[in-house]
Amino acid sequence: MFLNFPKRLCNWNQQVLTEDLEILARAVREGKRGAVAKAITLIESTRTTHRQEALTLLEILVKLGTREALRVGMSGAPGVGKSTLINCLGSMLIDRGQSLAVLAVDPSSAESGGSILGDKTRMPALSRNPKAFVRPSPTGKFQGGVSRRARDTVFICEQAGFDVVFVETTGVGQMEALVTELVDVFVLLASPGGGDDLQGMKRGIMELADLVLVNRSDGDMKKLSLLACADFSSALRLMRKRKQDPEGIPKVLNVSALEGTGIESAWNDVVELARWRHREGHWERRRQNQAISWFRSEIDERMRDFLLNDRDMRDQISAMENRVRAGDVHYDAAAETMVRKLFASRSSKSLP
Amino acid sequence: MFLNFPKRLCNWNQQVLTEDLEILARAVREGKRGAVAKAITLIESTRTTHRQEALTLLEILVKLGTREALRVGMSGAPGVGKSTLINCLGSMLIDRGQSLAVLAVDPSSAESGGSILGDKTRMPALSRNPKAFVRPSPTGKFQGGVSRRARDTVFICEQAGFDVVFVETTGVGQMEALVTELVDVFVLLASPGGGDDLQGMKRGIMELADLVLVNRSDGDMKKLSLLACADFSSALRLMRKRKQDPEGIPKVLNVSALEGTGIESAWNDVVELARWRHREGHWERRRQNQAISWFRSEIDERMRDFLLNDRDMRDQISAMENRVRAGDVHYDAAAETMVRKLFASRSSKSLP
Repeated sequence: MFLNFPKRLCNWNQQVLTEDLEILARAVREGKRGAVAKAITLIESTRTTHRQEALTLLEILVKLGTREALRVGMSGAPGVGKSTLINCLGSMLIDRGQSLAVLAVDPSSAESGGSILGDKTRMPALSRNPKAFVRPSPTGKFQGGVSRRARDTVFICEQAGFDVVFVETTGVGQMEALVTELVDVFVLLASPGGGDDLQGMKRGIMELADLVLVNRSDGDMKKLSLLACADFSSALRLMRKRKQDPEGIPKVLNVSALEGTGIESAWNDVVELARWRHREGHWERRRQNQAISWFRSEIDERMRDFLLNDRDMRDQISAMENRVRAGDVHYDAAAETMVRKLFASRSSKSLP
Repeated sequence: MFLNFPKRLCNWNQQVLTEDLEILARAVREGKRGAVAKAITLIESTRTTHRQEALTLLEILVKLGTREALRVGMSGAPGVGKSTLINCLGSMLIDRGQSLAVLAVDPSSAESGGSILGDKTRMPALSRNPKAFVRPSPTGKFQGGVSRRARDTVFICEQAGFDVVFVETTGVGQMEALVTELVDVFVLLASPGGGDDLQGMKRGIMELADLVLVNRSDGDMKKLSLLACADFSSALRLMRKRKQDPEGIPKVLNVSALEGTGIESAWNDVVELARWRHREGHWERRRQNQAISWFRSEIDERMRDFLLNDRDMRDQISAMENRVRAGDVHYDAAAETMVRKLFASRSSKSLP
C-alpha cells in the first residue's frame, strides 16, 4: 500500500518535504488505510521533526476542506463488554454500507505504564473488514500527551471520510472528561452487579453520559440488567437537567452485546440524538467549544515544550531545582522567579 | 483571636504590609488556629494582591525554618467511613498528646461544582478539640487549582507545628495521584461489598497505596470484611514490588471505624512505615521529588496565569479563538502561532 508513496515517507530518517505531506494528506482524504495509519504514527511521534511534519500535515488537511464524522465515545469498566459491543455495532454499520474507525484512548496505569486494553484481536469481525479501521491504543507513558495525540488522531479519521469514529476508553475516572472533549455523543456502558453498576459508578462520569447502556440483558443476568436499568433511570432523574438532551436527561437502555439485542435500537437513539442536536444548534456549539478547549490546552502544552527545549531556561530551572530540593527556597517562590525570568522581555507589569 | 493582629490583616480591602505578614507567619508558627485559618484563606484567595501576599507569607515561613509533620493521605469511596476513621484516629492521637490537622481535598463534581464532602460536623470529636484543626474543603470550581492550593495548605499546617496532617479525599479517581504528591503515607480505605471493594477498585489507585484498611470488620459485615482483606492481599501480591515498602507490597488490615478496633494497630503500622522510610532514605527522597514536581507544575500554572493577565496576549488569543471557532485554522497550528508570538523575543531557534 505504501508503494505509491514517496520513499521519504517510508523512511523516518530521511527529510520529508511538504509535497510528500501533501501526497500523504490526499491519500488520507481518499480513505487509504495505510495513509491513515502512517498519519497517525506521525502524529504520535514525539520527535521534534515529526511534530513539525505532523503540524504541516494537519494544516494541509484543513486547507483541503474539513469533513465531519459522527464521533461516539464509548466508556465503561474493564470487562463490561465494550469491545463486544463495538464489534457488534460496527458490523451492523458496515452492513448498512457505512465505514468506521475505532480508536482506543487508554490512560495506561499511572505507575506500571501497562496497557489495560488488548489489541486488534479484541474485535475480530472489524479488524478484518476493509470498511473498518481499528487502531490499538498507544503504548508507553504519555501523561497529558494521550489526549493531545487523541484529538489529532480523531481529526485524521474524520478527514479520511469515515462515517463513524468510535473512541473507546476504560472507565477509570481520569479519561472520561477528556473523551467528552473528543466526541459528539458519549455512551456509557454499564453492567449489573460487580463494581461497574450504579453504586460503583462515579457521579462525575454519570454527568457526562449522553446515553447509558446496561449490558448483559441475556440469560441469567437479564433480570438484574433490567433492575439496573431502572436504577440508572431513577438516579439520572435526580440529576441536573441538561439542555443538550431533548428530555433533559440521557436515555437508559438494556442491551446484550453477546446476543446483539437492543443494539440497533441503541444506535438509532444515538443517531436521533445527533440529528436533534444538529437541528437545535447544540452540535455546532459543542464542536466549537471543543476546538477552543483544545486550542487552550495546546497552548499550555506548547509553553511546557518551549521550556524543555530552551537550553538556557532548562539550565536555570535545573539550578533552581537543586535549591528547591535542598529546601533553600519555597517551590512556589522558585516558580515565580523562573516565570518572571522567562517573560522578562515582556511587560513585567502584567505579571500576576 | 484576631484581636492581637494588625487590623490590615482583618480587612481584606486594606493594603497588607510585609510586617503584618511577618506577624501572621509568627502566629502560624505558634500554632494559633485563627492564624492558621487566616493563612489558608489567604492562600485560597484568587485575587492578585492576595496571591502576592500569600507568596510573601510562604517565603517568610521558609526563612523562619521549616518543620515536618507526618502527612497521611486517606482515600476511599464516599460512605466507606473515612470521616469516622479520622475522627477515631484523631481522638486517639490527641489522647497520646499529639496535635493534628485534617484537610479535605475535594475535586468537586466536574459539571455540577457541588461538594461531595460535608463540613466540620462530620468529625464531631475533632472539630471541638483545641488540639485538632479541621478545615473543610474549599467550595466552588478550582480545576487545577485544588492541588495548587492544597500543597500550600499542607505546608502551612506543617509550619504551624501539627504533629500529623491528614489529607482526606473521596476516591473518585482523579485526586488520588495528586494526594500522593502531598503526603508521606497514603492510606486506602475500602469496605467489603458495594462498588468500593476490590472489583470496583481501580488498579491505578491500588498502586498508590502504602497501607490498605478494610473497614466494617464488625457485626454482620465482619466475615465479608475478612474475606475482602484476603482478596486485597492476594491482588497486591500480584503487583509490581515497590522499594518504598519494607516487604515490597503494602500491608492490608481489617479495621472497624465504628467500634474502633484495629485502629491503633493500623496507626502503629503507619508510624512504623514512616520510621523505616526515614532510616532507608525513602522519606527524604520522596519529599524532594514532591517539591520538584510541585515546582514544575507551579511553573505551568504561572505561565497560564501570565497569559491570562497579559492584556496584549489575551486580545491576540481571543482573536485567534474566533478563527479556530470558525474552522479557518487548525487549533494545533493556532496554538503554535500564539506560543511563537509569546516567546518571539527569546531565541526562536529553540522553539520545538
